[in-house]
Amino acid sequence: MKCTILTVGTEILFGSITNTNAVYLSRELQALGVDVMYHMTVGDNPHRLVEMLAYAYHDCDLVITTGGLGPTQDDLTKEMIAEYFGETIVEFPDQLEILKSRMAGNGRKMTPNNLKQARFPEHAEILKNPNGTAPGFWLEKNGKIIASLPGPPSEMQSMFENELKPKLLAYDNKVLYYRNIRTNGIGESQLENDIMDLVDGQTDPTLATYAAAFETTLRIASKRATLEEAQEAVDGMLEKVRERIGQYIYSIDGEDLSAVVFRIMKERGLTLASAESCTGGLFAKTITDIPGSSEVFDRSLVTYKERAKIAELGVSAETLEKYSAVSPQTALEMAEGLYKASGCDFCIAVTGYAGPGGGTEEDPVGTFYIGLYHNGKCRSYRYSTRRPSRDRTRQYACIQMFKLLYDVLMDRNTDFA
Amino acid sequence: MKCTILTVGTEILFGSITNTNAVYLSRELQALGVDVMYHMTVGDNPHRLVEMLAYAYHDCDLVITTGGLGPTQDDLTKEMIAEYFGETIVEFPDQLEILKSRMAGNGRKMTPNNLKQARFPEHAEILKNPNGTAPGFWLEKNGKIIASLPGPPSEMQSMFENELKPKLLAYDNKVLYYRNIRTNGIGESQLENDIMDLVDGQTDPTLATYAAAFETTLRIASKRATLEEAQEAVDGMLEKVRERIGQYIYSIDGEDLSAVVFRIMKERGLTLASAESCTGGLFAKTITDIPGSSEVFDRSLVTYKERAKIAELGVSAETLEKYSAVSPQTALEMAEGLYKASGCDFCIAVTGYAGPGGGTEEDPVGTFYIGLYHNGKCRSYRYSTRRPSRDRTRQYACIQMFKLLYDVLMDRNTDFA
Repeated sequence: MKCTILTVGTEILFGSITNTNAVYLSRELQALGVDVMYHMTVGDNPHRLVEMLAYAYHDCDLVITTGGLGPTQDDLTKEMIAEYFGETIVEFPDQLEILKSRMAGNGRKMTPNNLKQARFPEHAEILKNPNGTAPGFWLEKNGKIIASLPGPPSEMQSMFENELKPKLLAYDNKVLYYRNIRTNGIGESQLENDIMDLVDGQTDPTLATYAAAFETTLRIASKRATLEEAQEAVDGMLEKVRERIGQYIYSIDGEDLSAVVFRIMKERGLTLASAESCTGGLFAKTITDIPGSSEVFDRSLVTYKERAKIAELGVSAETLEKYSAVSPQTALEMAEGLYKASGCDFCIAVTGYAGPGGGTEEDPVGTFYIGLYHNGKCRSYRYSTRRPSRDRTRQYACIQMFKLLYDVLMDRNTDFA
Repeated sequence: MKCTILTVGTEILFGSITNTNAVYLSRELQALGVDVMYHMTVGDNPHRLVEMLAYAYHDCDLVITTGGLGPTQDDLTKEMIAEYFGETIVEFPDQLEILKSRMAGNGRKMTPNNLKQARFPEHAEILKNPNGTAPGFWLEKNGKIIASLPGPPSEMQSMFENELKPKLLAYDNKVLYYRNIRTNGIGESQLENDIMDLVDGQTDPTLATYAAAFETTLRIASKRATLEEAQEAVDGMLEKVRERIGQYIYSIDGEDLSAVVFRIMKERGLTLASAESCTGGLFAKTITDIPGSSEVFDRSLVTYKERAKIAELGVSAETLEKYSAVSPQTALEMAEGLYKASGCDFCIAVTGYAGPGGGTEEDPVGTFYIGLYHNGKCRSYRYSTRRPSRDRTRQYACIQMFKLLYDVLMDRNTDFA
């Protein structure tokens, strides 16, 4: 199947938002064996939208649109698809009921333009949207298929996963199975190099690498007649991959590094606390993204000003004066003070120059120190961020905190033995 | 001038990389008054590239391509542009010299395919690339303009800024001016309803609404002969909009609510601390996203477990036992304890059920309490999140914390007078 991803929204053409929907859909469709031929973006303009649909179908059989399903006048996707397919737009009574009860449940009044969201092309099949007021739809006519999804990424993604993907798989009677192998400490080109011969000439299972912030993901996917066949193909390939790059793999199911650390600590009944300066709460935010994190995570003392480091963690004014707030000494005292306050099994502290201001010649912006108190020992580690921006440095520091915890938990770091 | 941004690269269609070039160019072009009509992405395929060029010019006068200028066989952009424009590809001797000396300087040998990078359509004007081996070019023929830029963002951006932008400014005889009006507490459809008559039949200034998480942005834009005219048109419309929805507006320059709160506090020399339970550090992370936030922000005590609330904030075990951790009483004691610890001007605390577990009949998942200590007074407020998910509840709580601070700072909340 050949596909165009057609994004509708003037805000994308203005550069106000990044088209992450096209990235998500491209990856998912590739795993399904759908060839993505084009990405196209058009504004909230009826004429150009219909024209672009016609262009997309000149060598695609499937068009997936995102955006333009909302209640406002700008939202024209549905109407223009109906025009292109020669469909009448009609009210779907069951959708109207769902919409009414949803609005009532939220204590909101129906405005006339809300009614738009219960109207669809007459032959459309509804794609449910449990996360928002705009359902999507699927329409198949004259050998052409269109699937229309909402713009907000969370709504779009869950609709794709739960509604559209099963339809696409049913279309060619195949089953998809894939695993997302997550790695840390190996760059994308190195990883590709190490598995090049496995990738070359491979049609099923397929291997694809994705570089994300500070890590590389490898996806192994297989589409076969049965789930068993697909699993066997993927797991066989996974073994070969392990032989090459096993030491960099921390997850074979797409789990975040923070989730892996949490899971291991929970299994072992361990507790965790953090003391944050440059990350400003990002470490705590990341671990508490996980439901049930309070089983492991006790507290984070985000001591942003020096006075807070002194008062909350007992860092000495002399240390701050003599070595500065960004130093191994301060990182160690933060971790020790955190242990005194919390008594947790793992007490991890971070301090650094996130920038854009600050930094010294020895420790420029992007430098940070992590201190870890564990098993009666306290150690500090120095890191520097490549191409540091405020955001990148904070993210990198947070990842390295989880990496350090992971290495200690897996006995890859022997400083705390 | 009407423009298509045409991205060339199979890796984008695979979802391996995000098309940030289109975002950058869109923003820059908008500021130049160039209308971006389409984003299109096509793979490294000669036939489809030429077809797409033809499509782009059906209602654009300018096409900007990114990618496909490298030395490999995949890199076809230049050749296909030449084919479309009926140009011969010729060697540019001065470019060959530059390339040779660059390669020599890097200690690399010229390979035959490197020579490609010194060859261009015969009527091309070179756009210099001081950051890489692939120069771009500009070609104007038969009323059509093409500008071809390299794919790597750093090379592309500096070529745009230093080479292409000056050329485009020569063509531009109009100026664009816009403002991003950010609101809180009003939904997109309600907002559009309230200003419907201003939107209808309006060609300049234009009004467009964008819904983001828990807020709506309104953009007012005008393109006129002079900046003064455009400003006058936008500001005149802004006044009308203010009359309708003034109470919901918190920023007319696109600033985040957290940045507005930070700016006001900084101007007034005020200090801020937080005590977080359900948000788990998100509030602190959000305010410390802002460079220089330590001028205002002192600390956040992320007290995730009950024992941490008792130890760090002095919340009484009796209160936790009698009213539970999610209660107005606990929120108040957290804020008071935070004030005792930090002495900050604003001490804000939050506790709630982020879910998916927890919650009671009276206070289901999505309920949270904010406590604020300010000006010798302490108050608590109850909130409930619509369609609560863990992520949404945490985000909403964080936004409501900033909203409460904003309302107090703007004298819209009189509880602390």
